Amino acid sequence: MYRVVASRAFRAGAPQKAFGCWCNLSRSAHTLPFATLEADEISGSKPGEVYNLVQGKWTGSSNWSTLLDPLNGEQFIRIAEVGEKEIQPFVESLSKCPKHGLHNPFKSPERYLLYGDISTKAAHMLSLPKVSNFFTRLIQRVSPKSYQQALGEVQVTQKFLENFCGDQVRFLARSFAVPGNHLGQQSHGYRWPYGPVAIITPFNFPLEIPVLQLMGALYMGNKPILKVDSKVSIVMEQMMRLLHYCGLPVEDVDFINSDGKTMNKLLMEANPRMTLFTGSSRVAEKLAVDLKGRVKLEDAGFDWKILGPDVNEVDYVSWVCDQDAYACSGQKCSAQSVLFMHENWSSTSLLSKMKDLADRRKLEDLTVGPVLTFTTEAMLEHMNKLLKVPGSKLLFGGEELKNHSIPSIYGALKPTAIFVPLEEILKDGNYELVTREIFGPFQIVTEYKQDQLPLVLNALERMHAHLTAAVVSNDPLFLQEVIGNTVNGTTYAGLRARTTGAPQNHWWVK
Amino acid sequence: MYRVVASRAFRAGAPQKAFGCWCNLSRSAHTLPFATLEADEISGSKPGEVYNLVQGKWTGSSNWSTLLDPLNGEQFIRIAEVGEKEIQPFVESLSKCPKHGLHNPFKSPERYLLYGDISTKAAHMLSLPKVSNFFTRLIQRVSPKSYQQALGEVQVTQKFLENFCGDQVRFLARSFAVPGNHLGQQSHGYRWPYGPVAIITPFNFPLEIPVLQLMGALYMGNKPILKVDSKVSIVMEQMMRLLHYCGLPVEDVDFINSDGKTMNKLLMEANPRMTLFTGSSRVAEKLAVDLKGRVKLEDAGFDWKILGPDVNEVDYVSWVCDQDAYACSGQKCSAQSVLFMHENWSSTSLLSKMKDLADRRKLEDLTVGPVLTFTTEAMLEHMNKLLKVPGSKLLFGGEELKNHSIPSIYGALKPTAIFVPLEEILKDGNYELVTREIFGPFQIVTEYKQDQLPLVLNALERMHAHLTAAVVSNDPLFLQEVIGNTVNGTTYAGLRARTTGAPQNHWWVK
Amino acid sequence: MYRVVASRAFRAGAPQKAFGCWCNLSRSAHTLPFATLEADEISGSKPGEVYNLVQGKWTGSSNWSTLLDPLNGEQFIRIAEVGEKEIQPFVESLSKCPKHGLHNPFKSPERYLLYGDISTKAAHMLSLPKVSNFFTRLIQRVSPKSYQQALGEVQVTQKFLENFCGDQVRFLARSFAVPGNHLGQQSHGYRWPYGPVAIITPFNFPLEIPVLQLMGALYMGNKPILKVDSKVSIVMEQMMRLLHYCGLPVEDVDFINSDGKTMNKLLMEANPRMTLFTGSSRVAEKLAVDLKGRVKLEDAGFDWKILGPDVNEVDYVSWVCDQDAYACSGQKCSAQSVLFMHENWSSTSLLSKMKDLADRRKLEDLTVGPVLTFTTEAMLEHMNKLLKVPGSKLLFGGEELKNHSIPSIYGALKPTAIFVPLEEILKDGNYELVTREIFGPFQIVTEYKQDQLPLVLNALERMHAHLTAAVVSNDPLFLQEVIGNTVNGTTYAGLRARTTGAPQNHWWVK
Amino acid sequence: MYRVVASRAFRAGAPQKAFGCWCNLSRSAHTLPFATLEADEISGSKPGEVYNLVQGKWTGSSNWSTLLDPLNGEQFIRIAEVGEKEIQPFVESLSKCPKHGLHNPFKSPERYLLYGDISTKAAHMLSLPKVSNFFTRLIQRVSPKSYQQALGEVQVTQKFLENFCGDQVRFLARSFAVPGNHLGQQSHGYRWPYGPVAIITPFNFPLEIPVLQLMGALYMGNKPILKVDSKVSIVMEQMMRLLHYCGLPVEDVDFINSDGKTMNKLLMEANPRMTLFTGSSRVAEKLAVDLKGRVKLEDAGFDWKILGPDVNEVDYVSWVCDQDAYACSGQKCSAQSVLFMHENWSSTSLLSKMKDLADRRKLEDLTVGPVLTFTTEAMLEHMNKLLKVPGSKLLFGGEELKNHSIPSIYGALKPTAIFVPLEEILKDGNYELVTREIFGPFQIVTEYKQDQLPLVLNALERMHAHLTAAVVSNDPLFLQEVIGNTVNGTTYAGLRARTTGAPQNHWWVK
Repeated sequence: MYRVVASRAFRAGAPQKAFGCWCNLSRSAHTLPFATLEADEISGSKPGEVYNLVQGKWTGSSNWSTLLDPLNGEQFIRIAEVGEKEIQPFVESLSKCPKHGLHNPFKSPERYLLYGDISTKAAHMLSLPKVSNFFTRLIQRVSPKSYQQALGEVQVTQKFLENFCGDQVRFLARSFAVPGNHLGQQSHGYRWPYGPVAIITPFNFPLEIPVLQLMGALYMGNKPILKVDSKVSIVMEQMMRLLHYCGLPVEDVDFINSDGKTMNKLLMEANPRMTLFTGSSRVAEKLAVDLKGRVKLEDAGFDWKILGPDVNEVDYVSWVCDQDAYACSGQKCSAQSVLFMHENWSSTSLLSKMKDLADRRKLEDLTVGPVLTFTTEAMLEHMNKLLKVPGSKLLFGGEELKNHSIPSIYGALKPTAIFVPLEEILKDGNYELVTREIFGPFQIVTEYKQDQLPLVLNALERMHAHLTAAVVSNDPLFLQEVIGNTVNGTTYAGLRARTTGAPQNHWWVK
Repeated sequence: MYRVVASRAFRAGAPQKAFGCWCNLSRSAHTLPFATLEADEISGSKPGEVYNLVQGKWTGSSNWSTLLDPLNGEQFIRIAEVGEKEIQPFVESLSKCPKHGLHNPFKSPERYLLYGDISTKAAHMLSLPKVSNFFTRLIQRVSPKSYQQALGEVQVTQKFLENFCGDQVRFLARSFAVPGNHLGQQSHGYRWPYGPVAIITPFNFPLEIPVLQLMGALYMGNKPILKVDSKVSIVMEQMMRLLHYCGLPVEDVDFINSDGKTMNKLLMEANPRMTLFTGSSRVAEKLAVDLKGRVKLEDAGFDWKILGPDVNEVDYVSWVCDQDAYACSGQKCSAQSVLFMHENWSSTSLLSKMKDLADRRKLEDLTVGPVLTFTTEAMLEHMNKLLKVPGSKLLFGGEELKNHSIPSIYGALKPTAIFVPLEEILKDGNYELVTREIFGPFQIVTEYKQDQLPLVLNALERMHAHLTAAVVSNDPLFLQEVIGNTVNGTTYAGLRARTTGAPQNHWWVK
Repeated sequence: MYRVVASRAFRAGAPQKAFGCWCNLSRSAHTLPFATLEADEISGSKPGEVYNLVQGKWTGSSNWSTLLDPLNGEQFIRIAEVGEKEIQPFVESLSKCPKHGLHNPFKSPERYLLYGDISTKAAHMLSLPKVSNFFTRLIQRVSPKSYQQALGEVQVTQKFLENFCGDQVRFLARSFAVPGNHLGQQSHGYRWPYGPVAIITPFNFPLEIPVLQLMGALYMGNKPILKVDSKVSIVMEQMMRLLHYCGLPVEDVDFINSDGKTMNKLLMEANPRMTLFTGSSRVAEKLAVDLKGRVKLEDAGFDWKILGPDVNEVDYVSWVCDQDAYACSGQKCSAQSVLFMHENWSSTSLLSKMKDLADRRKLEDLTVGPVLTFTTEAMLEHMNKLLKVPGSKLLFGGEELKNHSIPSIYGALKPTAIFVPLEEILKDGNYELVTREIFGPFQIVTEYKQDQLPLVLNALERMHAHLTAAVVSNDPLFLQEVIGNTVNGTTYAGLRARTTGAPQNHWWVK
Repeated sequence: MYRVVASRAFRAGAPQKAFGCWCNLSRSAHTLPFATLEADEISGSKPGEVYNLVQGKWTGSSNWSTLLDPLNGEQFIRIAEVGEKEIQPFVESLSKCPKHGLHNPFKSPERYLLYGDISTKAAHMLSLPKVSNFFTRLIQRVSPKSYQQALGEVQVTQKFLENFCGDQVRFLARSFAVPGNHLGQQSHGYRWPYGPVAIITPFNFPLEIPVLQLMGALYMGNKPILKVDSKVSIVMEQMMRLLHYCGLPVEDVDFINSDGKTMNKLLMEANPRMTLFTGSSRVAEKLAVDLKGRVKLEDAGFDWKILGPDVNEVDYVSWVCDQDAYACSGQKCSAQSVLFMHENWSSTSLLSKMKDLADRRKLEDLTVGPVLTFTTEAMLEHMNKLLKVPGSKLLFGGEELKNHSIPSIYGALKPTAIFVPLEEILKDGNYELVTREIFGPFQIVTEYKQDQLPLVLNALERMHAHLTAAVVSNDPLFLQEVIGNTVNGTTYAGLRARTTGAPQNHWWVK
């Protein structure tokens, strides 16, 4: 029961210390009390370092790998990668956590309150301009996107934490009961943790995805091991230090950098009761097999948008299309991959406005930037295949960025849109090609006639991954027809519908 | 604990008997096993009789009153009215029930299952054509409406009972809990009964309103005394007998016929912990005072409908207007009292179609019939006052029914619509007059120009009672504007919106 | 729509200013940026002043009343009491708010987020030691209780506000829908505000009760007028200023000081759609009548505790009894008014331990202090009546406090316990006397034999007000028997059960 | 839209026909209107036949297999087994169903009501003695258990159907919404179907498991293919016919008999979006791999019971132990596999009473009967291995049944209990052996001393499958300790706790 005493001690003693520091934040120009580096100073000459955390201790590795700055190719970050022979402490740490978790409604309930306090403090920290700027800039360094987009990630994380202040963590553990058959009988339903769990997150949202998944797991009494894509793990490594500063017991989470093979071995040996994986379908399927189904997958999607017959607010709709397809250089899971335009929109200025907006994107402010999982060559090759489909044409983009120093292992492409006729998309020979997801600033555009809605619905039905979608219309019958005949994680409906930019308070119903 | 044993015994033994009888229902032309009369045979020469139920016994009275047949004035029903000096057994019966009720999650939980069984059996009984016909006809005899409208009442009652089959009653008693501050602590929230309660229901839905309110009270462990308007209490008296037949313990409900003064005295003496009153605002306010606030009121409303700027499906909308205003001779709480037409509708055939539909209503099939709370004279007088408002005119109706034998204590009016200009409605001198609710086949119609929506909203804001409303439009911005700026129990929205005809599964959010 | 723009402007601009100030809090020894006075400096020579707030402006009055310091009788606070002729601005302000409220799911939804932000900031303010000390001391000045008890009130308020950070306010407005009968039909259920409302709160929790009730009303879109008992309204007047500082629009709440007669007149004229009243049953019943039932009452209770047959942890149980009966000088709604001891407890040291604990209470640290609604004389007179009941005896206390300067309009009594035999309590002549609630450090103690539990349950059934109760036992059958046969707002069960000290996360299920 | 019209037609027309038939049920001694066989007449000379259902048609097969009567070895049932070359119609049928299902909140919502009606009628059918006897006897013929146990299965199925009468199916599709960031924005969460799904169920509950899983899938708009273990599929084949009789559209479900290899091939080709599998862990893991995780598993468990330190009601507890371990010959997923007795129970008559109760079980009334997945030899061999563990001993049973004609492919064992010392269970060499699940009348018994609870908890933590468990005690601290430190689908707590016999209203929280 040592932990309980310790955590209570924290709650009584820490605030004073913490508040003292928070005031310093406004006065001192130099450092944040939890951080071990400065976001803007990381460079080839002063590389940032990323450590592992296991059994409450930050550790290095016998094998440091090096990361190239996506903007100029400098070796700017060193990662302590855990090798296959070094996994034992992680396996042991995970195994220490019993299946009934670190807490549950019948065990250490004061920990629900502890996590309410941690969330309150961490949310407040992220609300401080100095702290939010630190994480915004750190995100930009490794996952190039505009300041506004990176700041949005920090703010969504802050709002998520605000949602679990006070008693809200314990309210998550709300149980229910119904009267039984006889006097003295009641049936109760409780939420129970899995105990030891693993969380594996991708490169595109270095802060938001791991924090939301990690905190959710912790709130309910699980002990997670967290692995973030090494390309961006520096962000979450610093966030772990902020959470410790806000009272997170250091032994509650392990944090690891490693390649996929090592992580796979670790999972096979430590055998967590659940693994939450966000990333490519290919890896997801392998994990499902290796872990015998004990895995939850947050996959990607070939996200579509349909413009309905009622044309309105062309300026606004063009702007949303540009944001959905090209913000974060198209590297959101929810990015618009294909646009189905009703013929009524063809006669408007929609496409030319989209082109103008795309032209305004530039490398200097990262409104367009490096693509981390496709090279320029690979994207151009895909484009050329598409352009061989009869009737296809390049609407705009389709060239490498000018005057850039992005290393060749990454991609550098202008925002690109390719028109492909609907009838061609539906042909068996073309369908797989056209609906291949390119995780970059790249979209397909097509048009449908008033009587071709069934063809569009057929194209949607044949897709494999369904994450987000948008039905841009205020016509209730059109909305009903499309929504009732499709399936998505989230469908945005209405004239102002989008595929991206969901607030922190929405739901993925898969 | 005798009751528990008894109720279990019922559950093991009764079904066989019941099922035997149910088969008889299909073969025998004569009688229902629970009923004490035949709906079609009640007449001046063979009057029906309505008894009281107290402490498990059906009782008469020293003072029988007589009811006139609303269609021909014959003395066709005799009611055993309880006088002020006879209330003692009712007071005692109610006082026997403790505040913690006949059951709660910690007391006699098997009674939740008992009520699941009663509901299952009663729902099945009402699904039998012979039984549903019996209640449909009985309703028609005392609360004249078309066969379809009266049958609808039986079916809604059946569906309500189906919703509480099996375990659904005990699911109503679902509780919740959250972890406490320390090991061993949890906070639980339970639903508890009031114990002794009273239910007072009006004439217009003789079966649906009392059954839904009574069963809801019983499910949660309350012991109700039920008083239905004597004009129609014969329906519920027979339904009580059906419920007993389906296993309702005879001591769980008392059933009383009396005048208001006697009932008031009874309530003051027995002091139920809650009274549920459905009826006129005038009585409601007196009860709120006498019972010092321990009363829940289901009041009426001056229900409005707005036709938006988008004209569509004029035939359908006219038909709904006719139904909303004139079905049950306008004697639904949710009947359309005023219609606000956007000017775009004025140039359509809407009003002439409404007139045609009104003309088709006739006394023979009760699509129009006696008005139980207003005389013909009173309604015509109200009409004449309205017609004095500048710009007002009679659209249709406005005359006494032809060739009827409705007794003069009741009303007999053709379906009537009066046009009043919007500007006049809003004037202080007219507003109270125009928005006076006439519980009969009577509505106000007005028109608003495109820029007059704020005036309409102002008219709605000034009303006192808000039960149902309809916004007839598929324009999302118009819907948002009207819904966001009004308040109603239920608002129906969409081109097919109505004010009446709610299914059994809707909610009154007041 | 001016308001919306304004509130958005606030959200973008205010945080910087606010955060700047918050840092000052740690450095400056002098003032809080929102406060208009210093809690410790209020005195006869430098009296505190309490203003009214109406239509966004702080206002004085033509008629200032004066409050006596409960500890020494000095005239230490001046209140701007609104007279009957000055109520017009308040009536107008309330009338401006429509029935559909300041916001609802279809109107100004951004205000849900605004209130999430206000809660986040106000919670953070209360977490700052300087601010929590300010309110703790201010509470102590007007509602004398120990520092710990007053601080607890501030902390519960802080936790409540934390529970509504981020999106939690909009989550309160969660609606639901179910599929309809036909394509295109759905039924939705929304939470709607009342619009103009009134809140009237008592003296004993000057911060917690008004803040919780006020914020709950505001979250859902209501516009409240708030009246706190003038004896303590200085606390909430300062809290209003803190809320404004945290972004509360100044026109969203009116704040009034007045006598009951004036308030009654105001309510009759402004006609709020709901009034939430916490206070004496006498006033509550009058309000229910005057407002025709449009009132929700949070009444008091004659709160009981039963010690079951299983004796354990006598020290702990004695301590809880002392806290429940005498903390805040017994002036909590949930204070223990009567203790039913199983005979097994009589042979333990329970009563002598309770006496020892009571003896340790002293005026210096306010562990016992002034009674604001009973004079010493009145309490002693009540005691003497009780002591005339056969078999009654004084267990401890029963005297005026020594060496105090509490003015004579207040009470000053040592913690007091009177033993009355169970059989005597149940007698008709005695029952009303024994169960009269004394809002002071005063409790009844009695004993029951193993076979007398039914008598105890009978005594509980006959009480009128049921707020909290405690069943001190770990015997599941005993717990079931008592819980299943009683009714309370909150029942605490288990060996460590108490009647007071509920956390912020509990429920009053009445 | 043909289906909608058809289903409405059904709803209007069918009841009359159905009710006519139901009355026949009481008069005719011969046949049920839906059934194609008589449960008691199936025999070697008149074998029952089981067909497949695909695309709305009942079909045979080119390859009929034969089942042995588990009581006498006669070839009594012929199964139309679908071969690998015959799966095409099934694949096509499943593929016809889109991902958005047969209905969803925006598509064919009238089907929610249709399923409410089907449930109402099917529940009523199962409540008829003739029908419930038919299914009870049919279950007994293929899955030998006592009449009471088989009848229990029918009744649980009936109650489940009652829970989804009326509107309860559409209530399952209840959605929610919260206000968005701006005017006009709301977030909605809906429940959506998977579309094409597969359900695979085991032999031990031939009616309850498939009906509950099938109806749940249908309610939400899925189109299932159902495969029940061929040993017992005759029960569900007849139930399908009852459901058609009650209005189930014949194309909504396909029903297949096949071996596992063929079913696996079908699943790989038809690619249902979810497969729900109940059965052995071995097959479950293979399916998880083959279906890449798109599978939900309802696995078995090595279910434990702990008797706590407080000895009480020895007769009752012995009786529950006998039921939990040996009812249905131990072939429930929830059967008690191991009993941990606190030393206080050893000195009672518990074990001798359990022996007496086991001795009363006999083949004639099927209180003990054939074991369908283990031969007698296999069970005795396992027993002998256990008896070699030091300190182990046979408590009772351990022999083949006398005078039986159970064919040798099945098992025939007397109810058996083996004592193994706790310390031996925990040894690595023994643990896997002792905790091997034997799906038959077989249990392990052990004892723990007052200070050995941690060892017991350790034994529980090491188990792999956790379905049900029982903590037999009324000591709140003991209950808290065990519940807080274990994990199970369902834990029964209290002196009357059991591992089996859950009512239809409970929850498996895995």
